[in-house]
Amino acid sequence: MKRIEPKLSLVGAGPGDPELITLKGVKTLQSADVVLYDALANEALLDYAPETALRIYVGKRAGQHYQQQEEINKMIVGYAKTMGHVVRLKGGDPYIFGRGHEELEYAQAHGVPASYVPGISSSIAVPGLCGIPLTKRGINESFWVVTGTLKDGSLSHDLPLAAQSTATVVILMGLSKLQEITALFQKYRGTEEPIALIENGSLPQERLLVSGLGKVVELQEEKRIKAPAIIVIGEVIRAQSQSLSMLHEHLLRDARIGV
Amino acid sequence: MKRIEPKLSLVGAGPGDPELITLKGVKTLQSADVVLYDALANEALLDYAPETALRIYVGKRAGQHYQQQEEINKMIVGYAKTMGHVVRLKGGDPYIFGRGHEELEYAQAHGVPASYVPGISSSIAVPGLCGIPLTKRGINESFWVVTGTLKDGSLSHDLPLAAQSTATVVILMGLSKLQEITALFQKYRGTEEPIALIENGSLPQERLLVSGLGKVVELQEEKRIKAPAIIVIGEVIRAQSQSLSMLHEHLLRDARIGV
Repeated sequence: MKRIEPKLSLVGAGPGDPELITLKGVKTLQSADVVLYDALANEALLDYAPETALRIYVGKRAGQHYQQQEEINKMIVGYAKTMGHVVRLKGGDPYIFGRGHEELEYAQAHGVPASYVPGISSSIAVPGLCGIPLTKRGINESFWVVTGTLKDGSLSHDLPLAAQSTATVVILMGLSKLQEITALFQKYRGTEEPIALIENGSLPQERLLVSGLGKVVELQEEKRIKAPAIIVIGEVIRAQSQSLSMLHEHLLRDARIGV
Repeated sequence: MKRIEPKLSLVGAGPGDPELITLKGVKTLQSADVVLYDALANEALLDYAPETALRIYVGKRAGQHYQQQEEINKMIVGYAKTMGHVVRLKGGDPYIFGRGHEELEYAQAHGVPASYVPGISSSIAVPGLCGIPLTKRGINESFWVVTGTLKDGSLSHDLPLAAQSTATVVILMGLSKLQEITALFQKYRGTEEPIALIENGSLPQERLLVSGLGKVVELQEEKRIKAPAIIVIGEVIRAQSQSLSMLHEHLLRDARIGV
């Protein structure tokens, strides 16, 4: 019988396209005894795990609450001690709004060695795949990634500061706050400042809406852009309008909306 | 004779570790006729290109100026039209302070179809690999990535706004401005705010210095931390101090400095 060596690997699955995982991520999956994956990780990646590995979904379920974080933490430690190598496959990068570090700390505190394998963060790659570079020389000096929804339902206090900067601002999980967000940014950047909403980024069903801040709420309702979606605000979006046609033709054909 | 089909692929090489390229990046390299690479891309990745592919270094040379951007743009178009598939391999992600989008636009304007393959950005992964998550629930609501050096040598006007936020701030190419940066952040965050300097992130020769804002300039001089280095400022760095010992032991042994 194989001796059990408990171990946790937090692996970033990337933004959705299964080819956007790293070589190290694949290699790590290949030695998994258990894979715990969530809704944002592409299930095609599970094929890299050995046939004998357990595959357990720990994401949101239709009609149910989230699996509680505490419950996931306990599963990690329990499976590591009874089965060996647990791979926690998380959408994007494990340390970007993913609670990955909480899982690592919990595992370590319970005697399970843990490591981190970075993933392509949707915050950077999803705009890029739509032809929007987060930085462009002469246009902006920074980019700022903010979560749209705080625990108490309020808007992050960082957003008014972000609105005053030259930063390209990327807002994750913010679609339900779109009205408040656009009102705030209009104060500092005006109604013509470009904004992009990207639904299902990097997947075949990706949809992109590009607009000015003044019209985006109306367009979003009309075109029914839904979560999971990423919001991007900034002048760099104009680069997209110029280069999109050759870059991502399906968007123009099927899904690109407004400008 | 093979018909030439001009094409440009901008490929992100990741932060340094050759296993941190994506599957798509490898696949793209495998069909290269020419690879143009720079100093930040790991040369081990060139092995994925066909033996017959040209490999051309276009980064900084000792004792010489940078290859001018205009010159690189022309090389891309010239090689694409005479050889076919040009892969532009860039450290990190091509759209994060990499001028990648300028290269894409230039190619497209000259009739060369171009596409983007995201890479793991050093701004996220290098701190992560040192045990520093850029976000942590209850500690911060955003992270902000800024370039330290503007064309005219001044500090970005976005930095005072960043200093006032809860953001974890990541500064690329900012080591020569460390004194100004720490003076600015101390005004808003105090002398005890943690700061990390990471030299040669994700590579075997990686070195990490963790300190408070008040002492870091002195320590950097004493320990001779040099570029290429990433600066991270924020409370999330405390997470690192707690979990480092199990995560990245070689750092503690060889290179971790101060606290």
